[in-house]
Amino acid sequence: ENIIESEPIVYRRILVPQPGGKEYCTDSGLVVPSISYSLHKKLLCVAEKHGLSVERRLEISGVCASQMALTLLGGPNRLNPKNVHQRPTVALLCGPHVKGAQGISCGRHLANHDVDIILFLPNFVKMLEPVTNELNLFCQTQGKQVPNVKDLPDCPVDLVINCLDCHENAFLRDQPWYRAAVDWANGNRAPVLSIDPPVNDQEQGIHAKWSLELGLPLALGEQAGRVYLCDIGIPQKVFREVGISYHSPFGCKFVIPLHSI
Amino acid sequence: ENIIESEPIVYRRILVPQPGGKEYCTDSGLVVPSISYSLHKKLLCVAEKHGLSVERRLEISGVCASQMALTLLGGPNRLNPKNVHQRPTVALLCGPHVKGAQGISCGRHLANHDVDIILFLPNFVKMLEPVTNELNLFCQTQGKQVPNVKDLPDCPVDLVINCLDCHENAFLRDQPWYRAAVDWANGNRAPVLSIDPPVNDQEQGIHAKWSLELGLPLALGEQAGRVYLCDIGIPQKVFREVGISYHSPFGCKFVIPLHSI
Repeated sequence: ENIIESEPIVYRRILVPQPGGKEYCTDSGLVVPSISYSLHKKLLCVAEKHGLSVERRLEISGVCASQMALTLLGGPNRLNPKNVHQRPTVALLCGPHVKGAQGISCGRHLANHDVDIILFLPNFVKMLEPVTNELNLFCQTQGKQVPNVKDLPDCPVDLVINCLDCHENAFLRDQPWYRAAVDWANGNRAPVLSIDPPVNDQEQGIHAKWSLELGLPLALGEQAGRVYLCDIGIPQKVFREVGISYHSPFGCKFVIPLHSI
Repeated sequence: ENIIESEPIVYRRILVPQPGGKEYCTDSGLVVPSISYSLHKKLLCVAEKHGLSVERRLEISGVCASQMALTLLGGPNRLNPKNVHQRPTVALLCGPHVKGAQGISCGRHLANHDVDIILFLPNFVKMLEPVTNELNLFCQTQGKQVPNVKDLPDCPVDLVINCLDCHENAFLRDQPWYRAAVDWANGNRAPVLSIDPPVNDQEQGIHAKWSLELGLPLALGEQAGRVYLCDIGIPQKVFREVGISYHSPFGCKFVIPLHSI
């Protein structure tokens, strides 16, 4: 019998130093373990040291998140030159931190692709430089920025993108604008995509239909909805430097669905 | 009769101050005019002024060019976990300039997606900062850099990516390493993808099967092969600032084919 034996497929190709509390798998069965917030932060920090700056990360995460959002909005069926008078509307809710800046970058790319963007970002006297830079670029699009929740649309939008939360600014959740934005999102009937949400035990936040994780996932709870993973361009040796044995689970994609196991 | 009249489709939605010598159209018939090299340069320069830095451009063009290359290599059929022992090989030919850095960024993203990359970049005592930065990041992947043409593979690779040429360093074409790289590419039987090639009248260069243009196309000649256009995230008002009335031809995509008309 001439059966050529192929090498067995290894499904566990990402090994992390501490288990993060949850494991996921890809459509093809590859195991993707979650990591802790502190290890995720260290990974980004080492990547920055090697030149993968915050600016680069904002650009790649903005492009990939907008590609995912364009698919969720209907892709080529919705966005084609014969449909110019049926442009989709997206409400983008951002806090004043790098996670908010990631959202603004996504919003710029969506606006560049004919999506009607309403960006909610409260007015602050002084903001972090990455947020200001993203905002300046966003202002060059046809997108609209509103500083008050009351300026958000009354009717359902096509999609809400949630970038309000951040691990390190949990105190923002007590502020009136934050509460008002959460109430608005929960009152609007649009589905919600959360980008890079924190692990959140409290149940009062925004319930997402989808969540997009960056690089490697955290152990997200139920309210994160269906989890997707985004390639943010971190090379293998950077993973190794923080103790992660990494082999890309992405195949030819930059955004893939993950399933809880 | 209750026929709802829809608005007529406008196919000419990009208007440029000077015609660039050639017009293209998209799959859906939208007209995309070419622009001159000097107007293209001015467009990038104004984009940089608004915060779309060279670093950001390197990241977005790297991501989108690698997405195109992954498709050319066979997409999900070729790159899946059952095929780990059939990794595609790409030879990447780069000159010591920003166009070369664009290629290195593309090479990093391909290496991150399990493509075997052999980067040819000659040794120079001092290189431009964007080139050095990209090279540092590339060195964190499993990709290999070779400084001599003789270290490029003898057998045909799956794809050659050509980033040797640049409008402003035409003198490089007379250097021995450049001539050797062109001869190697023309001798290898692999198809060639050129990223952001200059308009080139001379016929001694590398003939591409595909060329990827950034933002708006130049009037490329026959040896550019089939032309594709990449969205590099420039917002509408930046186009307007250089006198271009712009409406995205991309629909929900970031890379689209263009056809000569």
